Amino acid sequence: MTGREVQLVTYPRGEVRPSDFRVVEVEVREPGPGEVLVRNTWTSVDAALRLRLRDKAPAGYFAAFPLEAPMDGIFTVGEIVESRADGFEPGDTVWHAAGWRDYAVVEAGMPALGGVATLTKLDLEVAPAQAYLGVLGGNGLTAYAGLFRIAALREGDVVWVSAAAGAVGSLVGQMAKIRGHRVIGSAGSDEKVAYLLGELGLDDAFNYRSGPLPELLRAAAPDGIDVYFDNVGGGHLEAALDALRDSGRVAVCGTISEYDADDPPPGPRNLFMVVAKNLTIRGFRGSSNVDLLPEMTREVGAWLREGRLRYRETIVEGLEHAPEALAGLMRGDNTGKMLVRI
Amino acid sequence: MTGREVQLVTYPRGEVRPSDFRVVEVEVREPGPGEVLVRNTWTSVDAALRLRLRDKAPAGYFAAFPLEAPMDGIFTVGEIVESRADGFEPGDTVWHAAGWRDYAVVEAGMPALGGVATLTKLDLEVAPAQAYLGVLGGNGLTAYAGLFRIAALREGDVVWVSAAAGAVGSLVGQMAKIRGHRVIGSAGSDEKVAYLLGELGLDDAFNYRSGPLPELLRAAAPDGIDVYFDNVGGGHLEAALDALRDSGRVAVCGTISEYDADDPPPGPRNLFMVVAKNLTIRGFRGSSNVDLLPEMTREVGAWLREGRLRYRETIVEGLEHAPEALAGLMRGDNTGKMLVRI
Repeated sequence: MTGREVQLVTYPRGEVRPSDFRVVEVEVREPGPGEVLVRNTWTSVDAALRLRLRDKAPAGYFAAFPLEAPMDGIFTVGEIVESRADGFEPGDTVWHAAGWRDYAVVEAGMPALGGVATLTKLDLEVAPAQAYLGVLGGNGLTAYAGLFRIAALREGDVVWVSAAAGAVGSLVGQMAKIRGHRVIGSAGSDEKVAYLLGELGLDDAFNYRSGPLPELLRAAAPDGIDVYFDNVGGGHLEAALDALRDSGRVAVCGTISEYDADDPPPGPRNLFMVVAKNLTIRGFRGSSNVDLLPEMTREVGAWLREGRLRYRETIVEGLEHAPEALAGLMRGDNTGKMLVRI
Repeated sequence: MTGREVQLVTYPRGEVRPSDFRVVEVEVREPGPGEVLVRNTWTSVDAALRLRLRDKAPAGYFAAFPLEAPMDGIFTVGEIVESRADGFEPGDTVWHAAGWRDYAVVEAGMPALGGVATLTKLDLEVAPAQAYLGVLGGNGLTAYAGLFRIAALREGDVVWVSAAAGAVGSLVGQMAKIRGHRVIGSAGSDEKVAYLLGELGLDDAFNYRSGPLPELLRAAAPDGIDVYFDNVGGGHLEAALDALRDSGRVAVCGTISEYDADDPPPGPRNLFMVVAKNLTIRGFRGSSNVDLLPEMTREVGAWLREGRLRYRETIVEGLEHAPEALAGLMRGDNTGKMLVRI
């Protein structure tokens, strides 16, 4: 049997282009003992993938994708076609980390993406399969861990989240609202701002392209902020350090504004604010907080059932368009989770 | 009665020069009810003062010093000459925050320097008066809070401290050694390195001027570090972010390499390491941790009595030379605490 897979052919310089990838038809081998064969149905598109489209990924991060080879370590859901692993049956819907391809042979129990994407059966009564790539998967875990563990959200904190209409940001904003906080969101278009204020119910929101960021933030939070959930980096982090009040905290989830740069740009000029105002900047990867997955699943599952948490998906049809989906994500084309339906 | 006081006459651009200051003879008023008159004997010289020699101090920090006026908020010890405050008698040795002058009228109970330098009687059986400006005062508190609270030192952590021969750094290194850690210190001269390895007993030390910092650090900590106590900022912080292992922590105490700059320099280019390696950068001021003062005094007092903690002083004689002492401190002339004997 054969199936398609997306391979990287050249490390992009600057913006990602679909021509940096190719789609090839490859042999799909039989599953061995302890393995399952999965027909993938949905695969994830994440800004963090951009960090691995380099000949050398950042130290300590997931490995770079090799050229002209399968891209391993991308969150995916699918249906088991054949099983030689205990506890898994044909027809089971699962998640795993061998995405961006039609078929995958996956070893049960093999840790993947820090343990988050180890082969796992999904409960489709809670949400449809693709939700496990977003709200109930890595994005949900990232938002939950970042807000409640890393930023250590405390009663009364005023929260700013950037890329607030994105897969993680849209969850962060709503989770903070559910816990009773004043939440300011920023995004890159007026349409997204309308979504933040309307559907997500944030207290204030602005389009960061509509003026100088420090002024926009000051207008939304004249008395300052206590927590900044950073998805953007660069000037966004600098504005946050100025706006944070004493003992404020930054949870750095990602720095998408810097991912296309061949050489990382310098950090903020006002880093001394951490001393002056007793600030904490704490970076994290969702996958480093996999111990919170059961708690997150329980809480988020309840919020979904109660209709308190909403999510949107931006769906690109066809595996062959996964590279375009990633390029679009980097440009900010998506609202909510960017998904490819295979 | 009159006495001398040091006043700032111009905000220095770049390096501090003694000509930025003047010494004037001023009237000393009688203490009112609740006040004491103190003859100052020792006054503190701290790198952090440089941050206040600006027309605008960093937001959230202690206020800038006004020109041609007393410089309020500098840690000092002295002897009470006259008391109109309950609990204070002539002859008592005290600390307070009205330094860089011969005489001060101080209101008992008035919070100063975040509560650290509120008028307090000193126990001279534990240590001589001037030790309360260093090891048993703000420097001791800063080292103690930074290491044990802010960096949250954990068993087995490998620690790097910069400016390790300075007033704070020399305490940080020793405290971490007392708690059983492997400690690497860096300083700006071979003499200081000898002091770190010899008298302070650090495990490794290097002169950061003797080669490329990342290589020097790698040689001293080939397997990386877990905690970086930052007194320097700039390239030192950048090197630390590269060397830190997963879940590592930076306690940012100060960034002396940046204090002379008219415009703050950009931050490190590798700030993304906080995400990749789940790092925490936490800034702090010793004075924001004044609740730890009794615990620090008890612990440090015991370590001094047991001979486990040592400290050095670099003494400049004469109030009129306080500005030169500060200029010398910024150049790194001191080992241990820089003091002016009035």
